[in-house]
Amino acid sequence: MRTRLADADDFDIAAALLHDFNVEFDEPTPDAATLARRLRGLSDAAVLLIGDVGVVVLRFQPALWTENLECYLAELYVRPAERGRGLGEALLRAALDHARAAGADYVHLGTSEDDVAARHLYEKVGMRRTEGDSGPLMFVYECEL
Amino acid sequence: MRTRLADADDFDIAAALLHDFNVEFDEPTPDAATLARRLRGLSDAAVLLIGDVGVVVLRFQPALWTENLECYLAELYVRPAERGRGLGEALLRAALDHARAAGADYVHLGTSEDDVAARHLYEKVGMRRTEGDSGPLMFVYECEL
Repeated sequence: MRTRLADADDFDIAAALLHDFNVEFDEPTPDAATLARRLRGLSDAAVLLIGDVGVVVLRFQPALWTENLECYLAELYVRPAERGRGLGEALLRAALDHARAAGADYVHLGTSEDDVAARHLYEKVGMRRTEGDSGPLMFVYECEL
Repeated sequence: MRTRLADADDFDIAAALLHDFNVEFDEPTPDAATLARRLRGLSDAAVLLIGDVGVVVLRFQPALWTENLECYLAELYVRPAERGRGLGEALLRAALDHARAAGADYVHLGTSEDDVAARHLYEKVGMRRTEGDSGPLMFVYECEL
């Protein structure tokens, strides 16, 4: 299955995937049409797809500490029936390649201790949840405002 | 000591603080003049100061899941000689108030397991490193590109 950067025609597919992502994990979500409209309005985002079964959303910002961009990997989802055969890894690698080509020198994301499959995938492509190779863990802190 | 939203005249102060922040923690940093120039160029950022001794940098993005903004708390620093008397807490609370007033409904950040003082501060203002009140931990994963 091929990975591709989503174009205007792909945002409905991406939005349906993102909607089903949040439904699967019992998180609130607007309907897919609303998500598609929002995706089209995000000037700082890149959306990649693998087939019509997996999606990743990247957000870019100018870095403070370097002259480049930094990338936040905001969403990564593969439909349950399609898991276990490397599609998430292919999509993640394509996303990192895209971020690098777009001018980012750093990527970060937040994930749950419970999401063992995702964590394994991030580690497989060389991402770390520690400072340096074996330093202290890095935690996400968050709150609603 | 008063907190304030940095204006054009404050960016040199903020940049000097951010420079010294990275020097203190042995992280690479450009010189303060370069940082000041970058701060002035960040259209998605808000910088707050407490006196001339503490700084916070917020980055804003349109949210995907709601109609509001989300806020990434990218940097928080108080000079070593000024710590231990509530300046970090006052600055953090001012930053959260600013983010809310700017239209953000969510704030997130990454911090180290080792940075116990900062973690205590984040927890004191109601931020969590778990999903919900007592769910699994949330980790930052990152890599250079």
